[in-house]
Amino acid sequence: MADMYVRFFDTTLRDGEQSPGATMTSAEKLEVARSLARLGVDVIEAGFPAASPDDLEAVRRIATEVGNPTDGSRAPIICGLARTITNDIEKAWEGVKSAARPRIHTFLATSEIHMQYKLKMTREQVLDKVREMVCLARSLCEDVEFSPEDAGRSDPDFLYLVLAEAIKCGATTLNIPDTVGYTTPEEFGALISGIIKNTPGIENCIVSVHCHNDLGLATANTLAGIQAGARQVEVTINGIGERAGNTALEEVVMALYTRHATFNCSTGIDTTQITRVSKLVANYTGMSVQANKAIVGANAFAHEAGIHQDGMLKHQLTYEIMRPELVGANQTRLVMGKHSGRHALKQRMLELGYRMGEEDLARLFERFKALADKKKGITDADLEALVSDELYQPKEYFKLDGLQVACGTMGMPTATVRLFGPDNQARVCASVGTGPVDAAFKAVDAIIQAPNGLLEFVIHAVTEGIDAIGEVTVRIESNAAGQVIGAQSEMDQLRTFGGYGADTDIIVASVKAYLSALNKLLAATGQYETAGQTEAEV
Amino acid sequence: MADMYVRFFDTTLRDGEQSPGATMTSAEKLEVARSLARLGVDVIEAGFPAASPDDLEAVRRIATEVGNPTDGSRAPIICGLARTITNDIEKAWEGVKSAARPRIHTFLATSEIHMQYKLKMTREQVLDKVREMVCLARSLCEDVEFSPEDAGRSDPDFLYLVLAEAIKCGATTLNIPDTVGYTTPEEFGALISGIIKNTPGIENCIVSVHCHNDLGLATANTLAGIQAGARQVEVTINGIGERAGNTALEEVVMALYTRHATFNCSTGIDTTQITRVSKLVANYTGMSVQANKAIVGANAFAHEAGIHQDGMLKHQLTYEIMRPELVGANQTRLVMGKHSGRHALKQRMLELGYRMGEEDLARLFERFKALADKKKGITDADLEALVSDELYQPKEYFKLDGLQVACGTMGMPTATVRLFGPDNQARVCASVGTGPVDAAFKAVDAIIQAPNGLLEFVIHAVTEGIDAIGEVTVRIESNAAGQVIGAQSEMDQLRTFGGYGADTDIIVASVKAYLSALNKLLAATGQYETAGQTEAEV
Repeated sequence: MADMYVRFFDTTLRDGEQSPGATMTSAEKLEVARSLARLGVDVIEAGFPAASPDDLEAVRRIATEVGNPTDGSRAPIICGLARTITNDIEKAWEGVKSAARPRIHTFLATSEIHMQYKLKMTREQVLDKVREMVCLARSLCEDVEFSPEDAGRSDPDFLYLVLAEAIKCGATTLNIPDTVGYTTPEEFGALISGIIKNTPGIENCIVSVHCHNDLGLATANTLAGIQAGARQVEVTINGIGERAGNTALEEVVMALYTRHATFNCSTGIDTTQITRVSKLVANYTGMSVQANKAIVGANAFAHEAGIHQDGMLKHQLTYEIMRPELVGANQTRLVMGKHSGRHALKQRMLELGYRMGEEDLARLFERFKALADKKKGITDADLEALVSDELYQPKEYFKLDGLQVACGTMGMPTATVRLFGPDNQARVCASVGTGPVDAAFKAVDAIIQAPNGLLEFVIHAVTEGIDAIGEVTVRIESNAAGQVIGAQSEMDQLRTFGGYGADTDIIVASVKAYLSALNKLLAATGQYETAGQTEAEV
Repeated sequence: MADMYVRFFDTTLRDGEQSPGATMTSAEKLEVARSLARLGVDVIEAGFPAASPDDLEAVRRIATEVGNPTDGSRAPIICGLARTITNDIEKAWEGVKSAARPRIHTFLATSEIHMQYKLKMTREQVLDKVREMVCLARSLCEDVEFSPEDAGRSDPDFLYLVLAEAIKCGATTLNIPDTVGYTTPEEFGALISGIIKNTPGIENCIVSVHCHNDLGLATANTLAGIQAGARQVEVTINGIGERAGNTALEEVVMALYTRHATFNCSTGIDTTQITRVSKLVANYTGMSVQANKAIVGANAFAHEAGIHQDGMLKHQLTYEIMRPELVGANQTRLVMGKHSGRHALKQRMLELGYRMGEEDLARLFERFKALADKKKGITDADLEALVSDELYQPKEYFKLDGLQVACGTMGMPTATVRLFGPDNQARVCASVGTGPVDAAFKAVDAIIQAPNGLLEFVIHAVTEGIDAIGEVTVRIESNAAGQVIGAQSEMDQLRTFGGYGADTDIIVASVKAYLSALNKLLAATGQYETAGQTEAEV
């Protein structure tokens, strides 16, 4: 039996980025998109362009820079999400049109509960809206995907009708979401079979599945969808996404691979890239991966590299169903040191997948040399932490110039912070706190004056040993930064901002991460855009 | 149709504790067992008594203290694991016999690959061993569970034969493990159906399922097992366990609850305890839960408590398939302050589920007052962090007496540590490092001299705001501490030790966590048992 090709539609940058606090900067999004392209995904859903001008701009950059590969590789489809609203669809097209292979993805809910409570529309009105908006999308773009939201709880007969109309109006991919993560694999498989059997015209379209993990069944439901005939799966890296998240790309890929005889499916995914992309997304979003996460967790494989036990091979056969190398885990980690030159660094970064300009490389090299003075062997993980810290930071309204901390069991943790502000003036403030980070954050707050609530604060020493770089992610929430539209919930939500910092000193890393989140918040409020000018005028 | 009762067999303390670094102290295991009893699990697998005298002792304490409730509640079955080895079975019985309802669980692999490479036994030899050892177990204990390891990859006909023999010899529960997490729900359901249909005598036994999550399918496989007739499920809190872990208790419980009409099953679980137990296990094992984990992740529910938006209710209906309160998330967090007395603290701890002796309460109250001086409102999370830090620490060979740290961007992080040693002498050491934690750990190492490798270092500020208590977990590995037998792999593994520390100062918390892990390591090596004496003699 010939293999069936299953398309991977990655929505890490859209549905994944909607997780509270997973907000990424434009530069981070671009790097994630590049990594997804290298990973071999077929479609990158780059964002929801109508959400804000920033979102539109990020999608446009990805469409231009990742959607037009210059190295002869096949261009990934770049997709933008749109509600069934004229402005949304036009914005989506504006975002993706510069890609070699653009796609518009539009959606409307079809379950009774959503139509009645959220849309306040009748079935007839929903049908009309789908016809009108799919036609509009198709008039702009040849590749149009339509999703009947909350399909898992929709009346199947109405669903067939809506899908048939979307097909008539030119939709080329029909995506079936289990929006609330409610179905069982048996039910979801039956839903997909029913759609394929009963929807006129569906034989010329790709059927796609989009599952959520509220009951821990996203992967099983996605696989059931494939067995029922779906040929596209919508997934995210590490399964990030709202609530319990989306289907994890890595789980579906490796299930199809490991159980090839059962599924008879091939994919375009280069599995050896999985671990790298997983770490990249965890760092940029601040959504860390638990040790016992399938495929990409720290403990996912039974045996660590370097164990050299007799009978290792036989034990691998008895307890491992896939080799760590297959997903790029436990790769040899080339260690660099203080005598490594700029050329060696450039080479290593290329091997790690970073194409860097000379200016970025120069900044990285400077940080690299400073680190090499403190720490003997510099690993790939250290390098990736440096890249995140150095190159993917938001616009810096305030920049850390100096930090001095005293703490311990004497009980008066004190921090002194010196920041350069938007007016390029240094400001110094000392503060006491319950701990060194609290003291330092209080000192920062006294200077910056941007009220916010700290939602999460996580420090990881991901690299080998405690002398390595510590990475800190923080998530803050602001009333003042206004609200953002959730694509599906259409609820205004308080905006949250994630920040990332890396340093061998975790207190320094903490302050950097906090400043990075605050700088994102300041960009959203515009507080210091005007404040800076006012001060200049005074 | 009448509900079918599904028994929950929790193996957090056995299969869960086998995760690298998830080692818990005896006191922590006891507290987890108490929480599992409150949660309403039917069976607590308390450990693998043959692994070490410590493991045996921990099982015995749980059997005695949790296996004989004095408040009139139904006693949970307390179970001990044993290989099909006389000594293992005798040790297991020694561990569990003091419980009101003891169980011995023994297992032997039945797949060709395991029999050939690991056991080096023929089918006939496997059958003989099963007969002999199940008979032995049954001669000691009325309640005997047998598992054919790697059943998912075993020849079904041979499996039926082995199970039939186990039943003849007196096994009362037959547990079917998908040891390597390889099967799909369809396959696993068919395996269970086949067993129920083809195994003579099985109608008088309970069929159980035990799944692993290597492909992200553990929950789906477990549910497929239930649909095929299994009436016991083996699970862990947060799905912890070797590699990608076991089936998560919370996912199976909530799937059965939320989709009651599909499954028609009832359970003995009090769902409102889920969040509490999840946090407890995460703290004690140091296995943190990712934000997008189903049911117990920080983001698992769409809406946070306190959002008071118009139409909240309608949105809950549209996007939530269960209410957060149902799993005990978002409960009102009573805030205590510096004027709260000892009685109020005792009351609150009781409400949180901690029955504390007067001595423990006195120590907790002291820490509580110290914290209240630093921090305005003390939340439940703060209290639980204090309990973990104060009451569930290993024997302290070395105790932190003083810590002084200076760090910041000046680049010479320095820590001075004063420890009380086993001889009750204070030792002071100063050290410089790449960061404050590195400096402090180096100073500790200079005093304690117990070579080890740091595997993981995680700091969480789980409570509200950065002024709250920071919690640190570390995992270290030691060559010197000898090796431990994995029940199933029978591979000797390097012993790893987890440590936990909590303080408003994260550097202090880090040192406490490191000391707690080191103290566990020292207990395992016995290094300072003798050293202390030697020094006393000198």
